[in-house]
Amino acid sequence: MAKPTQIQLSHGGGGREMAELIGKLFFDAFDNPILRKEEDAAALNLNGATAFTTDSFTVAPLFFQGGNIGKLAIAGTVNDLAMMGAEPQYLSCGFIIEEGFELEQLKTIVNSMAAELQKSGAKIVCGDTKVVPKGCADGLFINTTGVGRIVKPGISVSAIQPGDAVILSRDIGRHGAAILTAREGLELDSELTSDCATLWPVVERLIAANLDIHAMRDATRGGIAAVLNEWSKAANVGIDIEEKNIPVCDEVRGVCELYGFEPWDLANEGTFVIALPQQAAEAAVEIMLRFCGCQDATIIGTVSDAHAGKVVLQSPWGSKRYLELPQGELLPRIC
Amino acid sequence: MAKPTQIQLSHGGGGREMAELIGKLFFDAFDNPILRKEEDAAALNLNGATAFTTDSFTVAPLFFQGGNIGKLAIAGTVNDLAMMGAEPQYLSCGFIIEEGFELEQLKTIVNSMAAELQKSGAKIVCGDTKVVPKGCADGLFINTTGVGRIVKPGISVSAIQPGDAVILSRDIGRHGAAILTAREGLELDSELTSDCATLWPVVERLIAANLDIHAMRDATRGGIAAVLNEWSKAANVGIDIEEKNIPVCDEVRGVCELYGFEPWDLANEGTFVIALPQQAAEAAVEIMLRFCGCQDATIIGTVSDAHAGKVVLQSPWGSKRYLELPQGELLPRIC
Repeated sequence: MAKPTQIQLSHGGGGREMAELIGKLFFDAFDNPILRKEEDAAALNLNGATAFTTDSFTVAPLFFQGGNIGKLAIAGTVNDLAMMGAEPQYLSCGFIIEEGFELEQLKTIVNSMAAELQKSGAKIVCGDTKVVPKGCADGLFINTTGVGRIVKPGISVSAIQPGDAVILSRDIGRHGAAILTAREGLELDSELTSDCATLWPVVERLIAANLDIHAMRDATRGGIAAVLNEWSKAANVGIDIEEKNIPVCDEVRGVCELYGFEPWDLANEGTFVIALPQQAAEAAVEIMLRFCGCQDATIIGTVSDAHAGKVVLQSPWGSKRYLELPQGELLPRIC
Repeated sequence: MAKPTQIQLSHGGGGREMAELIGKLFFDAFDNPILRKEEDAAALNLNGATAFTTDSFTVAPLFFQGGNIGKLAIAGTVNDLAMMGAEPQYLSCGFIIEEGFELEQLKTIVNSMAAELQKSGAKIVCGDTKVVPKGCADGLFINTTGVGRIVKPGISVSAIQPGDAVILSRDIGRHGAAILTAREGLELDSELTSDCATLWPVVERLIAANLDIHAMRDATRGGIAAVLNEWSKAANVGIDIEEKNIPVCDEVRGVCELYGFEPWDLANEGTFVIALPQQAAEAAVEIMLRFCGCQDATIIGTVSDAHAGKVVLQSPWGSKRYLELPQGELLPRIC
């Protein structure tokens, strides 16, 4: 009998077909001695402060300009660890696959995951595969959960202080805009790519430079508007942002005009915000500029003790307004 | 405007509605100081050998006799840690919810999770919520990933040796049969309940008794047939099982006859198998008998150096046959 070219229910049944799928596809791509042990759980050696984070990925479409769900699932979880000052070490990976999914597509996605893992050195050490009948899921969902050694303890929303500078690592809104154009079939007319990327290399360098980083956060769902609002509320501070300092590329600006979005509400997947003392801000930006994807890193604002819990956006014409937490549907299935 | 009674896309959007759902429902149920910090990742203190495991749950129907997807998602991941001799400490939790899912149902499921966590003392310290449009998922999928301190190192398939006794903790096939009857609408005629349960209490006691446990595995998808076959192959040993020693309740036997299943192929969710030296076997069984759910614990076979890589089942009439790894579709979405 010819080998199936599509995922079948038996690939998730716990029997021979699942053992083959795991052995041939996943173990080959993610190969490492811990994974190969095939125990109920991976045995790790972790010492001291450890960061732990989880993300499920349901992005539609699965492939977009600048990445796919696999690259996203690795970068997303690795970045959450990095934002805590943690070296991404070990990841788990759970696949929920719809019956009939093309095996070749799954291979492409799994290979993207393996390639993205190399950018941080993290390893997938345990996994899980479920197959659901046709119509019970939309192609493929991936959960990745990660642990990593906290290299710089104390990076936390609660460390943000009035007087801190707020740095943005690059132009915003690319991921959300790229998904939107892919969904509308407009990607062929556009140069727009997602910012989807692993941030550990630049974060590792920033930590090594001993810059007294107070807080870091990657601006995913809800964009930088969500991050800045969470920060202002959690740390009970005001945040003042200069709109003219926020880089936005022409393609994202075009998408925003077309669909009525604000770029600060759009999701990013390789863009982060830092709060740190004003006197360290220039040094931080200087380091960031050397890294791929951070060529537009810049100071966008400051933390103050006025209007606590609120983010104020100053327009290029001098007028001020509150930057609110995004509300409503925005774009579903962005990550 | 009245509060919605169903999950909406905006509950997964990263904005205000998501913040409310997380704050009110999840934080209240899973309340603990680490979770409340709301960082990108939870900061844990882990020292030394740590077990790490993941599972996605896609069970249909979401509610069945003896449990629901929430109870299952906690017990399943906690059990994978316990099977490695690890104390379940911290869990992550990722929800993928279909738009339109009833909030009351979600509450019931989340409360079951909180109740099941108490049986091991594990805590949910980080999470993720995604909402997909109607038709893109079947109600609710949950991923749980866990870490825990390895209390007894060296429990591993590779430690299994010829001469070991094989102990089964209880009667088999209940979870698979309970899901099947729920799916066919037969549950009202049946006393059958799933074995779904947290195994840490009995495992903790077994470890404390210093019994030189070689391997443990909970017999989930693929049933005890899958566990025993994996063991015989991975440890390159033969395993001889006495069919008459395997407890099977009347209801499971009835379901097997009706649908043509073998009870050893059916999934369990609170049933485990131990391999340990023959001379420790009686002491282990004696301990197990005292625990709820283990009243039928018994020795079902032995490990040998004959027929390496194969499991041999001896029938009550003396005939022998290979117990094979389950193959084909079995029951999809059992867990």
